[in-house]
Amino acid sequence: MLAKKYKDMLSQKSVIRELSEFATARGKEIGYENVFDYSLGNPSIPVPQEFTDYLIKILGEENPIKLHGYSPSLGIPEAKEKLAKSLNRRFNMNYTGNHIFMTTGAAGAIAHAVRCVTEPGDEVLAFAPFFPEYIPYINHTGATLKTVPANTVDFQINFDEFEKMLTDKVAAVLINTPNNPSGVLYSEETLRKLAKILEEKSEEYGHIIYLISDEPYREILFDGITSPYPANFYKYTLTCYSFSKSLSLPGERIGYVAVHPECPESETMVVMMGQISRGTGHNCPASLFQLAVAEFADLTADLSVYETNMNILYDALTELGFTCVRPNGTFYIFPKALEEDSVAFCKKALKYDLILVPADSFGCPGYFRMAYCIDTEKVERSVEALKKFVETEYPNR
Amino acid sequence: MLAKKYKDMLSQKSVIRELSEFATARGKEIGYENVFDYSLGNPSIPVPQEFTDYLIKILGEENPIKLHGYSPSLGIPEAKEKLAKSLNRRFNMNYTGNHIFMTTGAAGAIAHAVRCVTEPGDEVLAFAPFFPEYIPYINHTGATLKTVPANTVDFQINFDEFEKMLTDKVAAVLINTPNNPSGVLYSEETLRKLAKILEEKSEEYGHIIYLISDEPYREILFDGITSPYPANFYKYTLTCYSFSKSLSLPGERIGYVAVHPECPESETMVVMMGQISRGTGHNCPASLFQLAVAEFADLTADLSVYETNMNILYDALTELGFTCVRPNGTFYIFPKALEEDSVAFCKKALKYDLILVPADSFGCPGYFRMAYCIDTEKVERSVEALKKFVETEYPNR
Repeated sequence: MLAKKYKDMLSQKSVIRELSEFATARGKEIGYENVFDYSLGNPSIPVPQEFTDYLIKILGEENPIKLHGYSPSLGIPEAKEKLAKSLNRRFNMNYTGNHIFMTTGAAGAIAHAVRCVTEPGDEVLAFAPFFPEYIPYINHTGATLKTVPANTVDFQINFDEFEKMLTDKVAAVLINTPNNPSGVLYSEETLRKLAKILEEKSEEYGHIIYLISDEPYREILFDGITSPYPANFYKYTLTCYSFSKSLSLPGERIGYVAVHPECPESETMVVMMGQISRGTGHNCPASLFQLAVAEFADLTADLSVYETNMNILYDALTELGFTCVRPNGTFYIFPKALEEDSVAFCKKALKYDLILVPADSFGCPGYFRMAYCIDTEKVERSVEALKKFVETEYPNR
Repeated sequence: MLAKKYKDMLSQKSVIRELSEFATARGKEIGYENVFDYSLGNPSIPVPQEFTDYLIKILGEENPIKLHGYSPSLGIPEAKEKLAKSLNRRFNMNYTGNHIFMTTGAAGAIAHAVRCVTEPGDEVLAFAPFFPEYIPYINHTGATLKTVPANTVDFQINFDEFEKMLTDKVAAVLINTPNNPSGVLYSEETLRKLAKILEEKSEEYGHIIYLISDEPYREILFDGITSPYPANFYKYTLTCYSFSKSLSLPGERIGYVAVHPECPESETMVVMMGQISRGTGHNCPASLFQLAVAEFADLTADLSVYETNMNILYDALTELGFTCVRPNGTFYIFPKALEEDSVAFCKKALKYDLILVPADSFGCPGYFRMAYCIDTEKVERSVEALKKFVETEYPNR
């Protein structure tokens, strides 16, 4: 018999997928360049040329048996050492390669981090607005995702609701900063307060509450801001990272979990993730990409286009009267819809070839997400469409 | 709290790992070229040059945003179409791309195939001797692995024991042909008889018993033999494949599940695997390697060295009086040890710098495995060591 759990998932509609399919279909009618598709978070900039040159170089020069050989199940030691050193240099940490577990992107990282620090039935708390894939990511581990309602004032943490939900059942707390979909970076103050609460409650409940920090957008920051590193504030932190966004390599599936060196049994936790991977069928990410990202651990693609796009959209949206927190990073912006039902709002936008994503599935109804990882020229053209949409559909605002 | 299930696994000893560590340590003493390390199944031949050339070409010529972009969750359609066509051409099948789910090697393939066709608590039967990683692969899905004792006469299927164990609880049967560790290929007769029993029992129990066929060694065949394709005999077959061995790409983690087109809901099963991957953190294999293996779907590395090595070892072992079924393929040979306790036997072999793996963990005590994916020159030199080992330790045979 086919597994009921997975078969039942097929009947669940994905709003993002439906919108993306609409965009593709509409693109065939009027030319995709005329569809303002803000639905998908696919990087729109190339990997740096030196990264490509390096791949070509090692493919041409290295012994192919070694180059394409099995990676140890925890990842290639030399690659892990280089990544640890880069994190130490940038965030004043003390990782060694033994604190790093190589994964197929952040999805793989979260799958292993959560399985490592939870037992079936434990709760994992995340904060709205949140990336909707957290639901299967967490719930398929055997733990249960619970989501803390959003603080829509500034999209920092809603601490009142958080403290109510932080019961003895909670084994881990999952954060995502800078955040998909809000674009907001958690401040030092937020991280400090979060750490304090987690320390107190770990003490009170007599078990560690782990912090799983999902940071694929860590390097995409605006207005000259720098990102506090969550593990600096709390030693029970598992940092989940992906090179998908910083190096524009989403299809190559490469990332890691870094366990805080001062976390008890930190190296054991990495070895446990190796055991976990035997059951998930995850194994390691591709050896070639482990070697290459480690070589360029401090490098990013030219991420400046995302800031350019953000500025155009933020100015246009606020001018049109939208309530909108200015993003600190990522390639998302998260305004309040002009009517309560953001699904209805986004449906109306389709008439103007604007593909906006209602935020119900992000745990924040009434808002919508725009993923502006598209060409600036298109962002500029979309401003007219936005204006026409708002003026026509919401004339009395 | 750290997950007990995975932490407990750390205390389990891996014989293969211990032996491999011994080999490395001994290599530092006397030079690794003097250690006859038959412990690990790592390909010892390079990927074909045209494969490397193709990677270099697309890295240099293709748009990097597209090349390294997200793969759809079921795999890149064009790649899947090419792989389907190759299977159709070679094995007279009727796959389309919609019957193929791209995976990170055979481990990823089995993880998704088993989750797709079992419910927690169901049994999966495999046949000794079997690859010991099947234990975590299957048991971590929620199903339970049960193993049918070996037919040590010719390492085909022990049908008497199989029929006893094939109860109503069995949701799937897992085969591996040609087999790790025996090197034996299941004959057409075996596959026909297996299919007949599975059909009868599926009918009797009122539910499909799926066949999961793990075929990473499919192209490594000796003595001019051709491999029957298991799915040709049974329409409820999920074929799990890896390019690790045929193209010598084990570190790049690339393979697939192909669902028999006549299997009810075959295309749905592939879509279900996409849902499963959301929870395993598996996602897709690297886009670059999906594209490249599809381009060379009919190609293999120069696999002839494995046959050369097999012939040298088979002749030497039989001459020394070992009981040994001649392998039809793979890079393994599986002789009977010269005493009942094959662990003791393999320990004695270490004195002669021969790293042999006792087969207890393969479900076949009293035998041992040699993985002869090493240089032929070393295989030749090892014959003297084997001779000395046998003559010194077992003089009265």
